[in-house]
Amino acid sequence: MKTKLPPSGMRDFLPREKAVREYVMSAIRKVYAASGFTEIETSYLENIENLTGGDGGENTKLIFKVMKRGDKLKIQDGKTEDDLADMGLRFDLTLPLVRYYANNKNELPNIFKAIQMGPVFRAERAQKGRYRCFTQCDIDVIGDETNLAEMEIILTIAKALKTLKLKDFTIKIGDRRILKALCTAAGFEEAAFSDVAITLDKLDKVGVEGIRKELLKKGYPEAPIEALMALNENVSREGLEGVRTLSEEGYDNLKAIMEVVGEFEDGFKIEFDHTLVRGMGYYTSTIFEVAYGSLGYAIAGGGRYDKMIGKLIGSDVPAVGFSIGFERIIDILLEENRDIATGKKIALLYREDCNLKCVMRLSEEFRTAYDIVSLFKAKKKLGKQIDQLQKSGYDGFVFCEEEPVVKWFDAE
Amino acid sequence: MKTKLPPSGMRDFLPREKAVREYVMSAIRKVYAASGFTEIETSYLENIENLTGGDGGENTKLIFKVMKRGDKLKIQDGKTEDDLADMGLRFDLTLPLVRYYANNKNELPNIFKAIQMGPVFRAERAQKGRYRCFTQCDIDVIGDETNLAEMEIILTIAKALKTLKLKDFTIKIGDRRILKALCTAAGFEEAAFSDVAITLDKLDKVGVEGIRKELLKKGYPEAPIEALMALNENVSREGLEGVRTLSEEGYDNLKAIMEVVGEFEDGFKIEFDHTLVRGMGYYTSTIFEVAYGSLGYAIAGGGRYDKMIGKLIGSDVPAVGFSIGFERIIDILLEENRDIATGKKIALLYREDCNLKCVMRLSEEFRTAYDIVSLFKAKKKLGKQIDQLQKSGYDGFVFCEEEPVVKWFDAE
Repeated sequence: MKTKLPPSGMRDFLPREKAVREYVMSAIRKVYAASGFTEIETSYLENIENLTGGDGGENTKLIFKVMKRGDKLKIQDGKTEDDLADMGLRFDLTLPLVRYYANNKNELPNIFKAIQMGPVFRAERAQKGRYRCFTQCDIDVIGDETNLAEMEIILTIAKALKTLKLKDFTIKIGDRRILKALCTAAGFEEAAFSDVAITLDKLDKVGVEGIRKELLKKGYPEAPIEALMALNENVSREGLEGVRTLSEEGYDNLKAIMEVVGEFEDGFKIEFDHTLVRGMGYYTSTIFEVAYGSLGYAIAGGGRYDKMIGKLIGSDVPAVGFSIGFERIIDILLEENRDIATGKKIALLYREDCNLKCVMRLSEEFRTAYDIVSLFKAKKKLGKQIDQLQKSGYDGFVFCEEEPVVKWFDAE
Repeated sequence: MKTKLPPSGMRDFLPREKAVREYVMSAIRKVYAASGFTEIETSYLENIENLTGGDGGENTKLIFKVMKRGDKLKIQDGKTEDDLADMGLRFDLTLPLVRYYANNKNELPNIFKAIQMGPVFRAERAQKGRYRCFTQCDIDVIGDETNLAEMEIILTIAKALKTLKLKDFTIKIGDRRILKALCTAAGFEEAAFSDVAITLDKLDKVGVEGIRKELLKKGYPEAPIEALMALNENVSREGLEGVRTLSEEGYDNLKAIMEVVGEFEDGFKIEFDHTLVRGMGYYTSTIFEVAYGSLGYAIAGGGRYDKMIGKLIGSDVPAVGFSIGFERIIDILLEENRDIATGKKIALLYREDCNLKCVMRLSEEFRTAYDIVSLFKAKKKLGKQIDQLQKSGYDGFVFCEEEPVVKWFDAE
């Protein structure tokens, strides 16, 4: 073994961080399940052609590819990566979900509400805060064309975040059709839509002047740019009402969602954001993300993708998904130094001369009363040992003796 | 996307199987934690030289290797696999644990009791019941040279299996030093030990005659073979007492462990098995595995490996580990068609003309009373819909109306 470190950009987790991770996983899982979502699991590895051939966009450049094995690996004849690799690690949970649904749809309910929680892998340039393996916590509703799906999914995500005691977050919501209508009304050609949207997405970072400059630099004529700026000003002032005549479908959709979700606004708010774009090319109408405090990035995001499953099975199946950025949540909780409830945790100290049968029997007895009971041989420097136990999160300790009594740290 | 299936030997999990998997993971995790073990997580990927350079034995031939990326990948110059790959998927949890411990030992307690639960990957020939990605649930005690570590680890594993309602399993225990003493006493050379042990391991399958034949076929002289057969007969009859004079260390070790664990025999038994070998070359003394019913393979296994960490950090650190074969447990529970408690699960049915705000409010109300509440649009063929709900595990249903009352299926 040449190094003790995990590979560059990959991580091991110490007990404290792992405890926070498991606590968050389990809290999110419970909220998702309570709302009627059922958990599934897809393979970590996918056939390479499934990863490279789809809607993955930029992510397809970040695949960790797995080499062929045995006779199938012909190193001498291999000219390209694809000659040498037959599988790759998944880079998100949506593409595997679509494949899974296509494969199993006869065994799944008409409206399938799925939970997926697990690691995904991307060969990003390794740097602080950017990981090459990270966990996603997704819910998706497949098969429901009504926006009840959006309402359920948004309320469920909001509840999960509130369960984790994240407060005052904002759910930003938009609709691709409104974005498109804005560009069309301004006079941009349809082909320019994605490119213009990418610039518009930066509004909160660079302001109106920044947008104008970037669009000019990209070579668009002044007329549609000025028209877009005017539309933007109008919508910024009037909110959702400002797009009513531009995209009736988009307006009706967001109006209904915001009305229902608005009923439950408590510790969070929902807000129309006409500049919301979201990167993934597969979204067809509703898009949403969650902003938290002064963080410069979203802690959750998703949208409706009604055309993605159809590419695989031949006929369209409507779908909406929302994903919590698990690693971002963990970073927030670790930074805020949150206490994770682990139940009562006591140390059972035994001396060299104790009968091990008695030690074991006593530990089993205490385990019926307390959540965690750990055995430790009592050290000569007992004071120091007890200090360390307190520091490492024990609630109390007890000696293995005839009439053992727990001494609680908080009572001292 | 060319195929809807996961790669050969890899698996997706449907909701029912995933529910059983999560239930088992969480039950095992809880028992491990209650006994004072703390969970850690290691990277799924390891640097390739860490995987190929260690004590992995046969497993090092089964590594899924990940190709280098970008400028580092030189396909034209690559002559061997190792020129093209820089990482591999872990094939067990012990090797990563040893690396993790070496890297983090200053931040870990002197006696470190670790939980690890997660997938490992082996490029086995794909066939029924053999998976290329499977989950392991390990506990290890690092830093304790006394056999209290064995006692704790065995009792914890037994408790985990009992929590899963597996009954009448047998914990078989042996000691590498006894095995060695038997071979030496019979007159085999030390170099022959591993090879003879591999044959002896088959005693319960092929019987005494089978062992004799195989050793003869392997070319060993008759004298030590006959001596071994006589020793085997003696130990089979006398049990642990029969090896007392052969290996005092081994005898004392197993005697103490069996006495303490024996105190808790309830729904399981512990049994000395002098033919127990276990494949992994790194075990140094105690070895154990769990046999269940008429299954031809162990459902859990482990042992003491006091020399493995020393190879990495320069000085020996004692260690014992025990691993539950998670996939085998899942197979047993699915076969026995066990019910997994999911709490009260009800369906909330709404009609087209319902106000969605009321539907959502009602669902939130019901979620304070029941564990899982799923929304469904009421279908025209209502009887069929309700039948399907019952079949898919719902406990009852309720209509969204002014005074909603849950109708329970078991009350009908």
